Formats: sequence, structure tokens, C-alpha cells
Amino acid sequence: MSDGSGGSGMRPIRQTIPFADALRIVREAARPLDRTVQVTLPDAAGRVLAADLVAERDVPPFDRAAMDGYAVVASDTFGAGRQDPARLRCIESVHTGMVAARRLGAGECIQIATGAPLPDGADAVVMVEETARDGAEVRVFAPVHPRQHVGRRAADIAAGQSLLHAGDLLTPSRVGSIAALGIAEVTVYDRPRVGLVSTGNEIVEPGQPLAPGQIYDINRFTLGAVVAEHGGVPVPYPITADSLPALGAAVDDIIARGADILVFSGGSSVGERDLTLDVMRRKGAVAFHGIAVKPGKPTAFGHIGQTPVLGMPGYPTSCLSNAYLLLVPFLRLVARLPPHRMRTVTVPAAHRFVSAPGRHQFYTVRIVDGTAVGAFKASGDITSMSQADGYVEIPLRTDVIEEGEPVEVALFGPGARA
Amino acid sequence: MSDGSGGSGMRPIRQTIPFADALRIVREAARPLDRTVQVTLPDAAGRVLAADLVAERDVPPFDRAAMDGYAVVASDTFGAGRQDPARLRCIESVHTGMVAARRLGAGECIQIATGAPLPDGADAVVMVEETARDGAEVRVFAPVHPRQHVGRRAADIAAGQSLLHAGDLLTPSRVGSIAALGIAEVTVYDRPRVGLVSTGNEIVEPGQPLAPGQIYDINRFTLGAVVAEHGGVPVPYPITADSLPALGAAVDDIIARGADILVFSGGSSVGERDLTLDVMRRKGAVAFHGIAVKPGKPTAFGHIGQTPVLGMPGYPTSCLSNAYLLLVPFLRLVARLPPHRMRTVTVPAAHRFVSAPGRHQFYTVRIVDGTAVGAFKASGDITSMSQADGYVEIPLRTDVIEEGEPVEVALFGPGARA
Repeated sequence: MSDGSGGSGMRPIRQTIPFADALRIVREAARPLDRTVQVTLPDAAGRVLAADLVAERDVPPFDRAAMDGYAVVASDTFGAGRQDPARLRCIESVHTGMVAARRLGAGECIQIATGAPLPDGADAVVMVEETARDGAEVRVFAPVHPRQHVGRRAADIAAGQSLLHAGDLLTPSRVGSIAALGIAEVTVYDRPRVGLVSTGNEIVEPGQPLAPGQIYDINRFTLGAVVAEHGGVPVPYPITADSLPALGAAVDDIIARGADILVFSGGSSVGERDLTLDVMRRKGAVAFHGIAVKPGKPTAFGHIGQTPVLGMPGYPTSCLSNAYLLLVPFLRLVARLPPHRMRTVTVPAAHRFVSAPGRHQFYTVRIVDGTAVGAFKASGDITSMSQADGYVEIPLRTDVIEEGEPVEVALFGPGARA
Repeated sequence: MSDGSGGSGMRPIRQTIPFADALRIVREAARPLDRTVQVTLPDAAGRVLAADLVAERDVPPFDRAAMDGYAVVASDTFGAGRQDPARLRCIESVHTGMVAARRLGAGECIQIATGAPLPDGADAVVMVEETARDGAEVRVFAPVHPRQHVGRRAADIAAGQSLLHAGDLLTPSRVGSIAALGIAEVTVYDRPRVGLVSTGNEIVEPGQPLAPGQIYDINRFTLGAVVAEHGGVPVPYPITADSLPALGAAVDDIIARGADILVFSGGSSVGERDLTLDVMRRKGAVAFHGIAVKPGKPTAFGHIGQTPVLGMPGYPTSCLSNAYLLLVPFLRLVARLPPHRMRTVTVPAAHRFVSAPGRHQFYTVRIVDGTAVGAFKASGDITSMSQADGYVEIPLRTDVIEEGEPVEVALFGPGARA
């Protein structure tokens, strides 16, 4: 053979698709999950509600005092002033959690704590600050109007009101509104299960000794962290040898265990993903192989049976970059989470940035003295990425960013220095 | 008694401190945790490293091929061209995870896969695209210089290099760089334990029936969600009656169980926190009681023994607002997490906003058609907050924001519509 493709395992990428097309294809393959699970309230935050929630009761369930003071008939206080107080007889005291034993009549008042139910007959509360007390006699120094300092029944939520909808992300305040209704458990969408398969004969589990020619697995851990951060459940699979039977068996097994997407990655170095492609072609189909993006060019996407498959570059930085750019949008769609929006800062470029011609480039940078400094050392270099604060996107048609030009940096997270 | 303070449980707040002072006092009381725990890599993301990490080995541990192709002696290819290829004899094939059996001599090449160790004697790799093969003869159509397409040993991490420092937040890429060193477990700072005590005779656990005058607990769930979102471990305590002995016993018990801060809150309504103050005074000290902020005025802070204590307003919105404004900064300091920075948008005010005079106000808003609409219905109203997208801060000296004036909205989270 002299076809230029070399021997086994050497198939160069001949055609790439634009990054935007790859993202579109990946997004279109995302099927929001229909599986649901029940969770108790302490586990509900961050989950996505799977059923509309209609209030079955009023919150609060009764009119109640909004201030510490005295429940009164408002008209008894009309015209009251500091020099000419209304004089009422205190007949009872109501704490929260109690109900007044007696009905309030004209000329009477009931001492009441914030949150206690308004006694029958009362229609307002006088703040304690506007009163003075001597035995049973309470002097009221200012008038109140009906409903003053009263929290009305159903003011917060009225029975029958639609409170939350299927698809709503449960923020702390939404969890609180569910608690207010007395609901202890809710139905939420399940989290997508992401099968993670690191392939490569050279790849060794951290903690194990290295033989010559071997390196440690990185991608399974970076991918697992990204998956967990964006609402997925990482389902790691033991390191799989670079052989078609081993890979085929791993795929069958992990699909049988229930995966909503399969993510393959080489170790730190396998660039071309031949076996992943072979398995995809044999058991399913390849949608694309090769993206005009840097880093991350040797990325493949397709499916096996009904399960989407993402074949990630082996280089750790390329793999992680595409995890953020392709896997996260996919995952959040499947998890029914809102799109992830990175915080950005615009700072001057600390030096000239040169992009590969005809490549959409994502350049990792550090923020140093308020400027963007390239943090990209070499392909496959995980340390530089771990010290980066974010990335600058250089589109297809831009080749050079000059020193001092403003660049928008998308920040990786709260650890970023900007 | 006619001192204007009324009977039991009625002590109005006479003095408030500015919000900035309250925040300063709370921040100064935060002691970053020294307790550490061991976690395995799959659990390491989001944690804070507790010890410096120095590389004990080179990554990669050997020179390796950066491309699929042929390992060569670079000088053998000098002057090679398409019309005048260098002709080399392929003596072996090296896959990843393998080491070449033979040493490369002049005129020889070894087929090599990306990531495989560079054979002894070789100093460069020719890309497969620049070659053609016929049996053992490989024609090379372009020259390579020494080190070309070779990933150098230690290019990523050199043994002895300081990789990460105590206090570093473990992002996915940092977890990856730890994996690269073969480390399977790391020492991280423990998460702060936050004792959550909901007090109030009227408060009932969601899922239980309500008697007259009772309402469901909300604050324990909103606080728990906020705590978990910001690196803490909520330690909920059963609902505690509004009595000094009950509260005192709860405090002793929860401190004995190990809490790094105690957060009390009334049910939905107890405004004045008297008993919490009494317990703090009896067993410790009160640093402040009452903040000139809306919502959230009736907030107290102090300590019991060595344990900081935050007494939160009972109203759910006030409690949650101060959880974001005071508890989160405290908690992230104790957890050694970087400060939380909310994403913001600047949009025109949809209507006039009027602030209470002399009060620092946080106004919950929804983003509707690109404008900020007030989302505050009534004090204690949890549903309006659960439908808010963020808040507008109106400082002490500003009383009115006119319709159309630009306001900066701090967004609650990814569910926000802006």
C-alpha cells in the first residue's frame, strides 16, 4: 500500500467542519430527559421540577399580625393621639402558634405577637411602640386603619394558584415556596448519566505504578468534574484497551448500565480516535469527525443505537476545552438546565495573539495586572490550563490580535483572578 | 410597667447599624477552617486544597510522538522533497503503551503512534501525511528538524515544580493536573458545618398536618439550599419551641455535634428574635442587633462560646436576603472559597422605585422585556422572591429611582431570564 495513510491506526482527518456546525449538530442530538425521580426538599435545590405545582392551600393560612403589638378594632383608635390616647382593655395574649380563646369586642384589645393569627373581631394591629400599658389598660397613641399591620391570609400564595411549572429550576427561594405549601417531596427530572470511557494501552489509573511508556489517566477526571458541575452524573468505566473487541464490549456494557451519552477519550495523547470511529461506524453512525477549532480538532460525534457518542481528543486540554464547548451545552439541554453563561471581563491583550489561519481558536489566558496573557504552553499541557483564568475566543476570520487590543475573556469560575 | 416595651417577647429594635458595618463585623468573625479531610479525585472538584502539591515526577515521563508517523533521525530527512524523498527502512512499529525494542540507526525509521515513547536514537517524528510506504521502505517528502513533532519529557510538569498551593480551589483542570501526577487522593479543607435551627411554636415540618395558627417551616430549607450552594454542610436541627430552655438545649446540643456557625431563624413571622438574643446574651455575647437594611432589619449576630451565631429574621424573604448578603460571605471565608461574584445586567427601571428613607434597600426584581420590574409583594412573601430574577441595590442616600433610569441587577442564578 502506498496511499499515504500509513499502516494500522493512522488515518489523518481529511475534512473538518466549522465549530458552529459541530455545536449545532451536537445540540440537535440532545433529547431532554423524561425520566423523573422523587427528591425530598433538602435535596431539591438545583434540580429541575418535572410537574406543575398548584397551591392546594393559602399561604399564610390565616390573617396574622405583621407587628408585635395589640389586635384592635381599628375604629376604636380613630382620632387617638399622644395627648388623647384611646384606652382599651387587654383581655388576652396570643403568641404565635396559638389561637385567641375569645372574640374581640369594642373597647377591647388582645396582645399579639408577630405571626400570631388575628383574633376574631379584630381588624388591625397597633404597634407596641405606639402604646403604653398599665395592668389591663392599654393606651394607644396613634390611630390605625382597618387591615393595618395585618398580613392577609393568602397574601403570599392563594389556593389554586399555579406556583411553579415543570421545567423550573429549583432555586433556594423556589424550594422555600414549596416548603411554604407543606410539600415535603417533589418530582424532578433525573440527571443525565454520562458514560466516561478512557481508552489507551498506555493509560494507567492514578495511584497505580507506571511502567515505561505509560502515563496517568487525566480525561476521566476532568470530564467527571465538568459533568458533575453541569447537572450530570459521571459513570466512569474502567480504562479500556485500544482494541476493537475491548471497546465494543465496553460500549455494550455501559449502554446496558444506562447511559444518556457516551464520552470516549484517549489517554493524554491518542489523537485520531480511529477505534472510537470504528465502533461508532460498526454499531451506529458518525455525524462528524474533525472540527476546525483549536484546541479540539480531532473530535467525533455520532451515535450507537439510541445513545449519542462523543469521541474526545486524547490531549487533556483539547478534551477539556471541548467538554466546556460541546459537552456542557449538550448536557444542560438533556438535563433541562438553562444555558450556562460564563462571567466575562474585557481587558487589553498583554501581547500579540496569533491564531492558526482558518481555525476558530480558543486561547486560554491568565489575567495578569489587568491584561490577558496567553496561558497555552503546548498541546496536551494540563498545567497551563489549570493556571488559566479563562479563555479568549478568536473567530475564524481573525488571525491576529495586537498587543493592547481589548479582548473579552470568558472566566472559568470563581477561582479566576478577575 | 409602662415603659412602652409591652409585655413578654416585645422588645423593639431601638438602634440599627449600617449594612456595611454589619457585613464588616460578620466578615471579621469568620475564621477560615483548619480541619482537613482526604478525598479521592472524583470527589475533589470544588474543594479547596489544604497542602501544597509539588510534582514528584515529570509529566509526560518520556519524550513522545506528538503526531502519528515515523520516528526518524532528523538529519536523515534534511533536503527531502516531494520529487526527491528521503528513503528510510522501517524496522519496527511502536504503539502507545509500548517501548521500541530496538535503537534507531541512520537510514532507519520506526512507525510510531501519537503518545508512544520516542525510540532511542530518534530525535524527530515525520507526520504520516508527509510519507508513503511500500513494504519496509518509507519515503519521506519533507524534512523535519530535531525535536519536531516530539512532546518533550516534563514539558507539562517537571519533577520538583510547585504545581498547586494550599488554598487553591480545585477546578476540573486542576483535578486533571493532579491526576497527571498519578495522585489518587488529596487533602482538602473540610466544609463548614452550619447548624440550622428554626424556632417558633407555630412552625410545622412540611409533610405534617397544620393545626390552626400554624404555618410550615420555610427558612430551614432556603438556608440549607444556600449553604450547600456555597460550600457548607447544612446541619438541620428539629424545629425548636419558642422557650429559653428549649433554645438553650438546642444550642448546647448542636454545638456538641460540631457546628462552625449557628443560624437561628424564626418561622415565617417572628420578627424580633428576643429569645435568640437572650440565649446569646446568657451563653455568649451579641455583636449587633438590627441592621438599617430592607429587607432584613431584625438580624442579630454574636457568638456562643467560640461559635458565631447569626439570628435571622423570621420572614422568609428577609431571611433569604440576609443569607445571600451576610451568611454567604461569612461561609465562603470559613470555607476558604473565593468571594461569590454575581452576574449583573444593567437595564432601565420599568417604573419608579421608592426606597425607605435612611435604609439601604435590596429590591427584588424580575426582568421583563429588558426592564427591571419590582418583584416585592409583601414582607415575608416567598413566592414573589421565587419569581424574581435578581435584585437592585438602593444605597442609603438614594430615595428614588425614576422610571427609565438604568439600574444594575445582580442576577440570582442561571435560571434568571437575563
